[in-house]
Amino acid sequence: MTIVEKTSRAGRPRAVPDTAPQLPPREQILLAAAGLFVEQGVGSTSTRAIADAVGIRQASLYYHFAGKDDILAELLDRSVRPSAELARRLEEQAGSDPAAAAAALYTLAATDTELLARAPHNIGSLYLIPEVRDERFDDFRALRHELQEIYGRLGGKAGQLVAGSDAVPATVLGALLIQVVEVVIPLRRWGGTSAEPAVEIEPAVVAEATLRTAGLGPAEIRAAAAGATKLG
Amino acid sequence: MTIVEKTSRAGRPRAVPDTAPQLPPREQILLAAAGLFVEQGVGSTSTRAIADAVGIRQASLYYHFAGKDDILAELLDRSVRPSAELARRLEEQAGSDPAAAAAALYTLAATDTELLARAPHNIGSLYLIPEVRDERFDDFRALRHELQEIYGRLGGKAGQLVAGSDAVPATVLGALLIQVVEVVIPLRRWGGTSAEPAVEIEPAVVAEATLRTAGLGPAEIRAAAAGATKLG
Repeated sequence: MTIVEKTSRAGRPRAVPDTAPQLPPREQILLAAAGLFVEQGVGSTSTRAIADAVGIRQASLYYHFAGKDDILAELLDRSVRPSAELARRLEEQAGSDPAAAAAALYTLAATDTELLARAPHNIGSLYLIPEVRDERFDDFRALRHELQEIYGRLGGKAGQLVAGSDAVPATVLGALLIQVVEVVIPLRRWGGTSAEPAVEIEPAVVAEATLRTAGLGPAEIRAAAAGATKLG
Repeated sequence: MTIVEKTSRAGRPRAVPDTAPQLPPREQILLAAAGLFVEQGVGSTSTRAIADAVGIRQASLYYHFAGKDDILAELLDRSVRPSAELARRLEEQAGSDPAAAAAALYTLAATDTELLARAPHNIGSLYLIPEVRDERFDDFRALRHELQEIYGRLGGKAGQLVAGSDAVPATVLGALLIQVVEVVIPLRRWGGTSAEPAVEIEPAVVAEATLRTAGLGPAEIRAAAAGATKLG
């Protein structure tokens, strides 16, 4: 998997982002808005520009969404919800068994990496913009925080496989592990631009790095990868 | 060290960012601009607003900077240049010795964490905004890319301490290691907001996680931490 934006080039935002006429209008709006938000910035994108990109009237856009924030909230939610739901299921399945937790962490990291790598227009690159700190996006941040906490608990349990590894509080470990997985966001953002070559990274490589960050050694990681294959 | 913005609160950007009248005008401009860029967005910040925040006329601002991009370029440069220069020195000192590379990586990760944690107004949260992909910021991105490459080479050499660890290409490893260190950026950005509690993280904890991500075990990490103390 090459994590590079094929449709954009630094310094040259596309006037009209990709639209897919076969999609329902709501999906077309989300896709066009993602492109404009990421290429031009949320502040510089009007609902009018989004409607124009889709080829609908502004009034039709308001039939589907209350406004720009509503569209952004849904894009952010979609970038994290599938991983958060998978994380809940995997944590429940793993129970208190450290080997099962390691396999669950491997599966979660690899799947989350794929989801971030495929998210329309690398929406994760908007996570840190000022707008997202606003209370209107609390639901998104609470969901991502829940995902981060599950990373931390799975990582803490998996770490019990290794004697002598320093215990890091689950909250801190969760922040570190989700950060490793989110490596695909800057790689997509910058790779292939004039200042930086494209970097190719496989979900398995990110999953292995996540388990190393949690303190696991090569033998435990191989076992977790094998366990992950059985899981899913 | 608590990595939390003490001067800001989600959804309530400060009208007037911190200024420090004892600083030279150029530094006051940079500090005020950093606050406005991070709290309100680069697109929504005018040179007029920056001048107002400092309490100078717009013409005086243009005496020091060619414009908003010039200010942003210097802020971005300062967020990465000290670490890049340290990285070059450490890599040269370490030579081809894996244990020295591990100590150098530990020192680099801990120092870089401190620099990011102290950068005015968490300027790293702007790395992924659309503006920064522009060719005008190639120098910053080239410098950060060089830092990333040194992380990768040090991590690759340090990894030779561990038998049986899977070799990850230095380019990919560099992206993973700098990503771990940059965990302080989202922690500063979101910690203490309504959706997320503050997370405390020590530079040593980040440095240890960086070495784990490079494949090192507890014994090698303890030795690297001891070696880092001698270096620094």
